[in-house]
Amino acid sequence: MTGYTATVTVRLKHGVLDPEAETTQRALERLGFELEDLRSTDRFEIDVEAADADEAGERAGEMADRLLANPTIHDYEVAVEERE
Amino acid sequence: MTGYTATVTVRLKHGVLDPEAETTQRALERLGFELEDLRSTDRFEIDVEAADADEAGERAGEMADRLLANPTIHDYEVAVEERE
Repeated sequence: MTGYTATVTVRLKHGVLDPEAETTQRALERLGFELEDLRSTDRFEIDVEAADADEAGERAGEMADRLLANPTIHDYEVAVEERE
Repeated sequence: MTGYTATVTVRLKHGVLDPEAETTQRALERLGFELEDLRSTDRFEIDVEAADADEAGERAGEMADRLLANPTIHDYEVAVEERE
């Protein structure tokens, strides 16, 4: 078995309102910053032991399907790196 | 001016307790998943107009210093990409 870190990035689907991002954007604008748009995403870095990178990625995808992402409003992507 | 997306990734400093990550890890383990560790980070994707990538990155860093990250408990990194 090898140590991998699977990074799951969860973001709201296009068109779904993101009140947290809107509030953050307005706060930055009140501080005088100029920005066109702001999107917030959640990222989970998961350390797993797996036979290979594919297995680590599949397991992280299952974790996203079961808990980390709500399929109704979220999209997610998984990236896998071998741990030193 | 050119359109850039500056991505600010905010994570808790090493050694700072992460209750959200711990709760998530325990929930995954209750669902039968095996994992060594889990860390959660916040990511802000900020669309800005800037003269060049350095300026876009500097502005995003200032946004992190002023609002997005709490210097006492957070570290952050900034990555800049030109928008199509």
